[in-house]
Amino acid sequence: MDKNSITDFTPEAVIIDAGSFPVNPIALNWLDDCDRIVCCDGAANRFIAAGRRPWRIVGDCDSLSPEIMRDYSGIVRRNPDQETNDQTKSVHYLADKGIGRIAILGATGIREDHTIGNISLLPDYLSLGVDARAYTDYGVFIPADGDREFHCAAGTEVSIFNFGATGMSATGLRYPIRDFTTWWQGTLNVTTGSTFTIRARGRYLVFINYPPEYSFQSV
Amino acid sequence: MDKNSITDFTPEAVIIDAGSFPVNPIALNWLDDCDRIVCCDGAANRFIAAGRRPWRIVGDCDSLSPEIMRDYSGIVRRNPDQETNDQTKSVHYLADKGIGRIAILGATGIREDHTIGNISLLPDYLSLGVDARAYTDYGVFIPADGDREFHCAAGTEVSIFNFGATGMSATGLRYPIRDFTTWWQGTLNVTTGSTFTIRARGRYLVFINYPPEYSFQSV
Repeated sequence: MDKNSITDFTPEAVIIDAGSFPVNPIALNWLDDCDRIVCCDGAANRFIAAGRRPWRIVGDCDSLSPEIMRDYSGIVRRNPDQETNDQTKSVHYLADKGIGRIAILGATGIREDHTIGNISLLPDYLSLGVDARAYTDYGVFIPADGDREFHCAAGTEVSIFNFGATGMSATGLRYPIRDFTTWWQGTLNVTTGSTFTIRARGRYLVFINYPPEYSFQSV
Repeated sequence: MDKNSITDFTPEAVIIDAGSFPVNPIALNWLDDCDRIVCCDGAANRFIAAGRRPWRIVGDCDSLSPEIMRDYSGIVRRNPDQETNDQTKSVHYLADKGIGRIAILGATGIREDHTIGNISLLPDYLSLGVDARAYTDYGVFIPADGDREFHCAAGTEVSIFNFGATGMSATGLRYPIRDFTTWWQGTLNVTTGSTFTIRARGRYLVFINYPPEYSFQSV
């Protein structure tokens, strides 16, 4: 089982969303090492333009360039469903193959409504048996259900977003947590040791900010 | 009364958050024209470094450079409250002066937990009688309570986030809306005419994407 920390995660697949392409070393290592890179629709355009080759291209294909649609037709898995977004289609594609440990890159940045949508879908994927974590250039979003222990350096800034959980409490954080009812209430907490524990019934999302050595931030 | 559209808003004050500094022409015009520019704590560092001068600097001042703290002490309004963030402190500072129409710049970008926190606070400010709208480089977040009409070109992509409203319905949008229970459910709608109307009891947040002529995007 993967530890809930920034680096101790071994994805079986990487999904590339159409947000800001990350430049931090964690993300770039996976792109080199992981055989299953799934590009969400138009994200394939710039991924391929950067000299990389995806394993699959999944989505409704309305943003895919005609050239890529032609040259990469063998790896395109078109899904025209209008009820879900391309990130979710990619997660379903992988879940159907029994792939349940996924790193998502490019979930955030550029349009903020996409950012909010992509991030808030992560807890839903737990219903599919999928642990999909979004790695940005600033930190990692880890979806969780029930009691969980997390690992990161003391003094790390973390935020907790409640997705319907009740009975929430924590140890190892500077500020107490509760059953937050708005998005902002659990933001900007700080770890007091190298481990923190969250107790809850139901789902929530934890954002752990990277330490400086992982922050190749384009500020 | 201001129309609910991208450009028809006349802020009495502008708040500068510490996220990505916007480069679109709407934001830059306000910086030139508005007399009341409030920088949130450390956002003042780069604002002043860019050759501009804020009207006030509000926050807990833990991110303010010692030089600026010294040279601008006359306009610093320190608020050490640990329960609210610097954006909210700035809104309260303005609301206490009867200023209720505010444009917020730099609410998004860089750390995603700040983005989510800042954006989700906008509907709360309606309780203070404050209409605070966040203008990013991609669009505008408009908080609303009850039935409202919005104006933008047909074919504009809009997203609606529910903050406790019930009985939600809309006209002028491609996809029907309902009492969304998750963040992503109302994302990625599209306007069918130059006006759309939302009916609801309670609060919600509308994100209207800019048309191409306002999108000076640093993609």
